[in-house]
Amino acid sequence: MSTSQEKETYRNELAARQQVIKNEGLPVIVILEGWSASGKGSALGSIIKFMDPRFFRVYNMDVISEDDKRYPFLYRHAVRMPLKGQFSFFDGSMMDEVTYAYMKEEISEKEYDNRINSIINYERQLRDNGYLVIKFFLEVSEKEQKNRIEKLLESKNTRWRVNKKDLWQNKNYKKCKKVYDDYIKRTDSKGCPWHRIKADDRDQVEFIIANTIISGIDSAVKNPWTAEILNNPYEMAGVKKLSKIKLKDKVLTDEEYKKKLKKLQKELSDLHNRLYRKKIPVIIAYEGWDAAGKGGNIKRVASALDPRGYEVFPIASPSAEEKNRHFLWRFYNRLPKTGHIAIYDRTWYGRVMVERLEGFCSENDWKRAYNEINEFEKDLTDWGAVVIKFWVQIDKDTQLERFTLRQNTPEKQWKITDEDWRNREKWDLYETAIDEMIAKTSTVYAPWHVLESNDKKYARIKALEIIIKEIKKKL
Amino acid sequence: MSTSQEKETYRNELAARQQVIKNEGLPVIVILEGWSASGKGSALGSIIKFMDPRFFRVYNMDVISEDDKRYPFLYRHAVRMPLKGQFSFFDGSMMDEVTYAYMKEEISEKEYDNRINSIINYERQLRDNGYLVIKFFLEVSEKEQKNRIEKLLESKNTRWRVNKKDLWQNKNYKKCKKVYDDYIKRTDSKGCPWHRIKADDRDQVEFIIANTIISGIDSAVKNPWTAEILNNPYEMAGVKKLSKIKLKDKVLTDEEYKKKLKKLQKELSDLHNRLYRKKIPVIIAYEGWDAAGKGGNIKRVASALDPRGYEVFPIASPSAEEKNRHFLWRFYNRLPKTGHIAIYDRTWYGRVMVERLEGFCSENDWKRAYNEINEFEKDLTDWGAVVIKFWVQIDKDTQLERFTLRQNTPEKQWKITDEDWRNREKWDLYETAIDEMIAKTSTVYAPWHVLESNDKKYARIKALEIIIKEIKKKL
Repeated sequence: MSTSQEKETYRNELAARQQVIKNEGLPVIVILEGWSASGKGSALGSIIKFMDPRFFRVYNMDVISEDDKRYPFLYRHAVRMPLKGQFSFFDGSMMDEVTYAYMKEEISEKEYDNRINSIINYERQLRDNGYLVIKFFLEVSEKEQKNRIEKLLESKNTRWRVNKKDLWQNKNYKKCKKVYDDYIKRTDSKGCPWHRIKADDRDQVEFIIANTIISGIDSAVKNPWTAEILNNPYEMAGVKKLSKIKLKDKVLTDEEYKKKLKKLQKELSDLHNRLYRKKIPVIIAYEGWDAAGKGGNIKRVASALDPRGYEVFPIASPSAEEKNRHFLWRFYNRLPKTGHIAIYDRTWYGRVMVERLEGFCSENDWKRAYNEINEFEKDLTDWGAVVIKFWVQIDKDTQLERFTLRQNTPEKQWKITDEDWRNREKWDLYETAIDEMIAKTSTVYAPWHVLESNDKKYARIKALEIIIKEIKKKL
Repeated sequence: MSTSQEKETYRNELAARQQVIKNEGLPVIVILEGWSASGKGSALGSIIKFMDPRFFRVYNMDVISEDDKRYPFLYRHAVRMPLKGQFSFFDGSMMDEVTYAYMKEEISEKEYDNRINSIINYERQLRDNGYLVIKFFLEVSEKEQKNRIEKLLESKNTRWRVNKKDLWQNKNYKKCKKVYDDYIKRTDSKGCPWHRIKADDRDQVEFIIANTIISGIDSAVKNPWTAEILNNPYEMAGVKKLSKIKLKDKVLTDEEYKKKLKKLQKELSDLHNRLYRKKIPVIIAYEGWDAAGKGGNIKRVASALDPRGYEVFPIASPSAEEKNRHFLWRFYNRLPKTGHIAIYDRTWYGRVMVERLEGFCSENDWKRAYNEINEFEKDLTDWGAVVIKFWVQIDKDTQLERFTLRQNTPEKQWKITDEDWRNREKWDLYETAIDEMIAKTSTVYAPWHVLESNDKKYARIKALEIIIKEIKKKL
């Protein structure tokens, strides 16, 4: 039992840490998991009671909304990651939903394993990207849980807080315990360790949580985390260097183009209908040289689609809010719903191209990003998405021709900026980075496809053919 | 029947207008309403087919998600308003949902009238804030509708597109027609007129829609809209000028304060529980002088609440994305869900204080804003929310004392900036603006409450008392 003076002390210290994380730009994620009736909610309530409510957010993750169900399971967690210098408190998180789905046989053993791996990777990514992640598991014995639930059921004022899941959990206590122990063991890591707390004494729980957060912050500030560059664990697809890609002869006559375009657009349109009904999400990512013809290519794909079922996301430099979060956060916020198609005009690969070359992130950041991106795309395909990545390729002379044309045509001048010319000067540096990117992120589940676009018509037809082929594989 | 050359012409012209609205920073909202099977979806599909998909978004508003249902009915429309220079296309919009709810008696005659008024005001606000709003209603006769539905039902590939509502509509065609005609008449306005189109010939529909959009944009560019400053139509509560507010003697001893605080926090905590179960949303808005004690006041309120049921929103200057939309957009994005409490540390009233005084908006903008805010808050109370607005008042000497203390106390220095001192120099200008604001926005449904905060303890207790009283009125 902690004395009221101890309480006073850690409350003041915790309040002071808000200033520390603000000044340090440290984002902190506190996850409270535990048995039903272990007192998560009230522990959380006491912890934040004396903190400044402008610098934290609390999320109760108990109920998964219908909207959230239409995204990958990590989505609703990822979109809630805090800004630098702020707290996110999660009352319940991935553990509860994933173990429950597994025990209720809503997901298979294999899906369960996949999700655990996703969680391990996701939490490691958070830590590597500067987040402090503090995880608690509140324990009560079978008997104590039973007593608490019965007490809640006694009064009309508290009865509504007991749901079917709580009762089920107490009835299946031993089975649950085994699964929880296993989950905790597997998701325990050096960067994001679990703290198990016996939840018999409420004051004690609050005391331990508060002090763990305080010392966690102090230690994170004193000893900045150094992220390792991990080896890629995924099977890779074969790739070519850009310099080996043949662009000559990849051309179509106007007549061939028109005929094929019409046929392929019709086919894609029908497939879109079927995708929609089968609730399969599709992600089409476009990267390529400036003036390679991404815009026109996207237009030919989009115009075959039902406008109610797709979105095009032009990706510019990140906003201030986006910069203050994990670099994938803004893409979690731009995922398609199940049954929808999302097309990206530039993508998360900015991390290993422009951010790398312009020094917008550290070397460790971009070197880590290959793996982080592979994990992200793995989650998307595990979710059931078709992931198609295009590199739109032209040669340097063709780019010059198109730049010059844009410069000299009044209605096209808006398409060309000084930055384009500056980027052009760095062609060779970019080529090295792109070769590395394609080699390191062409996984078998999400390989790169090169669109030879010296002739834009050829590239458009090839894009449509690949999209159709990939979607068909999935249907 | 339009010829293929006409088609070519308006398609090119429409594509060119995307560049126009981009350059002019004109946001365009296109609303397509109409009878079931009138071909809204396919008309929209043909319209956007040749446009650049990076500069528009299409929203199918048919299905209201469970999440959206927990917000005011205008919410899901408002959060989808386009950025400056972009299009939002709505396939179905307010009309369909509101008339259907009315005919199905899900809302009363009075609620229906309220919603129509809200729609009229909301669309006028959009126009006044620089949006071009183009509304179409696609008509088919009873017989033609029946034929089309029957045809859709014939094939397995199209049958899923017919839902119960469509069948119901055809069965109740005459009743629907009467309601639609009335709705269109009432929501027709100079700024946002309806365009009714006979939808018998698909090509004709596309032709009319495209040309209406083209001429709408041209006319909006040539003749910029001048917004009128409207008279306030709402009943106002009595208010005092700031200079008449007595601050002396509004004090509490430490003992009184502690005793009352404990009692009131307990009471608020119980009420929060009841609010949550009754799904009543609460909006608590704080405005006040720098160093008036808003933060500490908010903390005393928040710490009485269940952390899973409230959020505190600190409002800083708007982001680039927020600046490129209606000034209320960022508050639509920060509303509480039903049953939740949202507390705002500074609010939408920035428009008539800092934005007015620093010239961040035009005179017409801030003069219009009183009415726009009253309408916004009226919608919130119509939705069922408790809206509580606090002005936290101190005198100029007290501010100086607190500024000086902050300046001289190392752990408080972060709270004071050069901007605070600059604002202080404009005290008299602010006072005039605040007096006008309070006088013009103290409606009977959302009056201002002054918290005398020379003694912060007094102000905290008064805030809790008012919150409790206002919530009780609603329960």
